[in-house]
Amino acid sequence: MKKIESVAIVGGTHGNEFSGIYLLRKWEQYPEQIIRDSFSTQTLFANPKAFEENKRYLDCDLNRQFLVSDLENPALTNYEQSRAKVMNLQLGPKGNAKTDLIIDLHNTTSNMGPTLILLQSDDYNKQMGAYLRQQMPSSVIVFEDQSTVDEHYFVSSIAEQGVIVEIGPQPQSVLRQDVLDEMEEMTQHILDYIEHVNAGTLPKLDDYDAYRYKETLTLPMDHNGERIGMVHKNVQDNDFKPLRNGDPIFTLFSGEEICWKGDYEAYPHFINEAAYYDNNLAMSLGEKFTVQL
Amino acid sequence: MKKIESVAIVGGTHGNEFSGIYLLRKWEQYPEQIIRDSFSTQTLFANPKAFEENKRYLDCDLNRQFLVSDLENPALTNYEQSRAKVMNLQLGPKGNAKTDLIIDLHNTTSNMGPTLILLQSDDYNKQMGAYLRQQMPSSVIVFEDQSTVDEHYFVSSIAEQGVIVEIGPQPQSVLRQDVLDEMEEMTQHILDYIEHVNAGTLPKLDDYDAYRYKETLTLPMDHNGERIGMVHKNVQDNDFKPLRNGDPIFTLFSGEEICWKGDYEAYPHFINEAAYYDNNLAMSLGEKFTVQL
Repeated sequence: MKKIESVAIVGGTHGNEFSGIYLLRKWEQYPEQIIRDSFSTQTLFANPKAFEENKRYLDCDLNRQFLVSDLENPALTNYEQSRAKVMNLQLGPKGNAKTDLIIDLHNTTSNMGPTLILLQSDDYNKQMGAYLRQQMPSSVIVFEDQSTVDEHYFVSSIAEQGVIVEIGPQPQSVLRQDVLDEMEEMTQHILDYIEHVNAGTLPKLDDYDAYRYKETLTLPMDHNGERIGMVHKNVQDNDFKPLRNGDPIFTLFSGEEICWKGDYEAYPHFINEAAYYDNNLAMSLGEKFTVQL
Repeated sequence: MKKIESVAIVGGTHGNEFSGIYLLRKWEQYPEQIIRDSFSTQTLFANPKAFEENKRYLDCDLNRQFLVSDLENPALTNYEQSRAKVMNLQLGPKGNAKTDLIIDLHNTTSNMGPTLILLQSDDYNKQMGAYLRQQMPSSVIVFEDQSTVDEHYFVSSIAEQGVIVEIGPQPQSVLRQDVLDEMEEMTQHILDYIEHVNAGTLPKLDDYDAYRYKETLTLPMDHNGERIGMVHKNVQDNDFKPLRNGDPIFTLFSGEEICWKGDYEAYPHFINEAAYYDNNLAMSLGEKFTVQL
């Protein structure tokens, strides 16, 4: 596997997801904690203005602005579109980036625990998942590998390798110690993994269970686009618990229950995530599978 | 006890506390659910513009604008100050209000469960707490009776009787079914209580344990006012669990633990509430006591 020479840890891509922002501050004070022998590590506070205003973003979601065509489009000039171009200059340029691997730190209001989202299913990512599962058994590995990196619009897609650390539940604009600790632990394991691969000292790893993104469900709406229901209380907080055909999934405000119709065993996640209300999204569904090394 | 003739249920005093807002919508569709024989009930959506912008408030906290001197001050003209004057016209005027009792619906990100906050400890409020404890044993009763109604700046202080329904944990900008159900149940019990008192049909009630607000703790800060720590993980989510002298209460980002120094058994609540970060507040502390009828 390719040697990684330069790593960037990005925090505050969303201004009201506090864990990453506070970890960056901590590492500024204790830089030795993220230093390893075989590669350089830099940190980047992605959206300080959104943090200042205690919002996810000012104009548009920064973590959707990294398509090459958008980065090259001079007509896209709002705050996040401008930040994206500047970040691409600092860490990229995408397609020929000076950064080999990006770790982007996020929180969710959903009960997802310490989740690592991998955007590719190449050996490097598959083994990273295996190493995480071995070192931090509470960790959950989700593959969102439905698109190629070129097609990804995430911050982490600036580099050839990019992963998303996604820890919850944490309300927006809150800092929980348990969530901060989990994010710090997961980030340390990722840095260790990179170091092990570079040095050829990776321990023997095992096959493991993971999830693969399949589809996104929207909240029940009427013909005017008004929400008429919410996530069912049986599903709330049950991220990564199986959902089967016929299980209740939404409760309408009228009291009626809506059941899920599906032909596979689904694993909901990002259940009732606050940031997804803008687009009336209710949750993501994934499938469980075994990653074979 | 005085007969209540006119009740107002207020929702959306804070625009990102969704339960009350959605309950108002529901009751607009099913008004019979909040009608009782012996009094009239109206609903009021307090801060629709903050809801639209998915924020607690636009200019300042609406639930701090109801001192008579502020309501009468024509120089206070921002959005929430203006809404306060209009609401005072609709439900008040404070001091001689056409509304006898206000129920103001709130959410918290803290793990407070279904909490009823009473602003006075007169017989009417004490018995309301007893009725709630009897009908809904999961309910928690908190007295914030340190000031007189005149000195209160809350929405609910417009009327001579006013209570705050405060249900959590719910992240800002999220709608949880369990929390919505609890808010609906508690509101129904309050309406039933008013009806029982009016009709002289109140069942026999028992003495009960409740909490009385004592003080508010701030987050650890340095000399520049920067936060240098967070709520300790042992305290997080343990609203209304006893805190004793010497118990860890904060963790500094340096790793150091700060212990609580106090000469009484404290009951923290509003622990790590998102909205309190603006003022660097960490939690409220209360004392437990028995309410004797």
